[in-house]
Amino acid sequence: MVKRNKNLARLVAGYLFPEINRRKKEFLKKNPDAKIISLGIGNTTEPISSYILNGLHGKVARLGTIEGYSGYGDEQGITELREKIAEKLYKGLVKGDEVFVSDGAKCDIGRLQTMFGNEVTIAVQDPSYPVYVDGSVISGVTGDFDEARGQFADIAYMRCCPENNFFPDLKALPRTDLIYFCSPNNPTGAVATREQLKELVEFARKNHSIIIFDSAYSEYIADPSLPKSIYEIEGAREVAIEVSSFSKPVGFTGVRLGWTVVPDQLKFDDGTPVRNDWNRVMTTIFNGASNISQYGGMAALEEEGLAEMRDKISFYMENARIIKEALKNKGVKIYGGDNAPYVWAQFPGRKSWDVFTEILEKCQIVTTPGSGFGPAGEGFVRFSAFGHREDFVEAVRRLEAW
Amino acid sequence: MVKRNKNLARLVAGYLFPEINRRKKEFLKKNPDAKIISLGIGNTTEPISSYILNGLHGKVARLGTIEGYSGYGDEQGITELREKIAEKLYKGLVKGDEVFVSDGAKCDIGRLQTMFGNEVTIAVQDPSYPVYVDGSVISGVTGDFDEARGQFADIAYMRCCPENNFFPDLKALPRTDLIYFCSPNNPTGAVATREQLKELVEFARKNHSIIIFDSAYSEYIADPSLPKSIYEIEGAREVAIEVSSFSKPVGFTGVRLGWTVVPDQLKFDDGTPVRNDWNRVMTTIFNGASNISQYGGMAALEEEGLAEMRDKISFYMENARIIKEALKNKGVKIYGGDNAPYVWAQFPGRKSWDVFTEILEKCQIVTTPGSGFGPAGEGFVRFSAFGHREDFVEAVRRLEAW
Repeated sequence: MVKRNKNLARLVAGYLFPEINRRKKEFLKKNPDAKIISLGIGNTTEPISSYILNGLHGKVARLGTIEGYSGYGDEQGITELREKIAEKLYKGLVKGDEVFVSDGAKCDIGRLQTMFGNEVTIAVQDPSYPVYVDGSVISGVTGDFDEARGQFADIAYMRCCPENNFFPDLKALPRTDLIYFCSPNNPTGAVATREQLKELVEFARKNHSIIIFDSAYSEYIADPSLPKSIYEIEGAREVAIEVSSFSKPVGFTGVRLGWTVVPDQLKFDDGTPVRNDWNRVMTTIFNGASNISQYGGMAALEEEGLAEMRDKISFYMENARIIKEALKNKGVKIYGGDNAPYVWAQFPGRKSWDVFTEILEKCQIVTTPGSGFGPAGEGFVRFSAFGHREDFVEAVRRLEAW
Repeated sequence: MVKRNKNLARLVAGYLFPEINRRKKEFLKKNPDAKIISLGIGNTTEPISSYILNGLHGKVARLGTIEGYSGYGDEQGITELREKIAEKLYKGLVKGDEVFVSDGAKCDIGRLQTMFGNEVTIAVQDPSYPVYVDGSVISGVTGDFDEARGQFADIAYMRCCPENNFFPDLKALPRTDLIYFCSPNNPTGAVATREQLKELVEFARKNHSIIIFDSAYSEYIADPSLPKSIYEIEGAREVAIEVSSFSKPVGFTGVRLGWTVVPDQLKFDDGTPVRNDWNRVMTTIFNGASNISQYGGMAALEEEGLAEMRDKISFYMENARIIKEALKNKGVKIYGGDNAPYVWAQFPGRKSWDVFTEILEKCQIVTTPGSGFGPAGEGFVRFSAFGHREDFVEAVRRLEAW
């Protein structure tokens, strides 16, 4: 018979978010009248704004005409969109043909793992977005899960906690081929400063490592002194890939559109540009993002679209402010939520899943247990700023009564 | 420095279709006035029909409203769509929760290769759609490319040619874990009969192999005696995965929507249902197909949508008839084109790329060189039936003058 892939057998628990959903459904079965407020998964809730919506409608309409119909496009994305991303979001720090459009950051991370293969070593922030670890386990670069430590063997975990201002101690870190780094961070809401990113880039240059920089939340950065892209740091083009997304800034979580930047200067040990292999992967096992989504993305990068994007972000950041305030008033120690749509709430001495369960049962609010993001997330839960305003107002009322 | 993935280094040539595109662009540079007709890549050309288009428009419109907006959905697809696929396209032979909706068959094949890992053995039809081989090379299950044979080591190539009616001699085939099988076949246009598929299923059952059955062109089958799905064969649910797509039947090549069926009964050697690992892969490194595309898919499976689908297929099959007729009149030996949108034209004693070049230069028609699909495709070129009617009429005129 066909042998099961031993890497998949290593993944003991289910992927975090379906597990939360399962527990939520279980709770609803027992409490069918509960009015649950979901501040768990970072799922956008507000309608797509009109100018961007017109971009989507426009392409659908054109698909119904002989002149406007298009089938397979370039797997790397529509040239105009690639150039718009380079110009509007990177201010020319990258070139259009270094931008590869995709169906989202999570999927790109999976494909990057396919590209790098199973002989690379990796470092991840702890806590971090689950796909860096889970996808790496599937691609075969890790050892077994150590139940006691809550960690996989052969991963260098970079602990990010209040004690180190959520920036890892790089001097204590072994050299690895890949370094996954997310800023603004999911789940902690921490944003790396320019100095910190300089340190990271220097570390990668010294070690000939490649940083996989996840900037999916960069548009949530309000403080102009904080870098939105790794390429704002000198020397990053030789050591960093950047993965990003339209999901959070314009509500395309369900529409599906993201991108990955692979600069020309990034090379493997044999001198092969990483870009070549990425292009080969994207043209072989991917077939382009939906052309409808891509037209929505183009609309989002025009002046009107960018204005709508800023409005949407302001809306969600007001939610973050509201929930932060409420938690502060309860005496909960909180982090993040200033330049990121996540509030990272600390419950010292308690288990994340216990806090998750208590908040679900007492307040009918779904959060995300911090330990689901890695062992250093134990004792925290994450509140997402994505939700309708009235739900935040109601959540605050319930938290006050808690 | 980071070592290049040795599997990617094994892929000597570029992916076939970008290479054809490159040669076409090169030709256009030298002949800027040439009016090229592309019968190469199987890319749909006709506008999306009105009922299905309304399905797409409808979801875009709802994304602009509070009630209709949706963000992340289930990674496996909208339940209603999964059930509609099971009911309308499989007549209940599979269940909705065995259907996993995706952004397309090519991408699903890449993810299946990720799921099975690098320790499986594989068999592919020769010739075949390139992603089975190229994706397998990337996932690390093959050896090096043998230039002389035009084959990768560690792949069992199942020769499909006029001499065996395009069905492989299974008795001569070694046992492999996976058997990629595409019917209606891309590129040969051959459709396996019920008897042949019974033989294939029996072979897989005897060997405890898993068939990855690609039925992306099944809706093009006109002859009611030919099976559209592997699950029409008794015993297939224990040995087969089926990958399929909305691309060709409704012109969603650019919209991106496909699915994969993994039946409950399919198990790994340790008893784990394959479905479990597929679910884990789909929820970990994928994030759902675009919700807009999914609503288009739902419209396509309502009565009005199905009627439009049949019209679209009739249109392209008339193109196939036209090109077949013209090639026959030229005395070219042809196969396929009756229950599949591909005509497989044989040019004995000639090299496929030479014929490709000659047809490009003499007729300004882009075809696909058969050898690009594997060594057994040498001496053939593939004509696609996808194109505007006037282009086929013009192509026939040029072929007659050739």
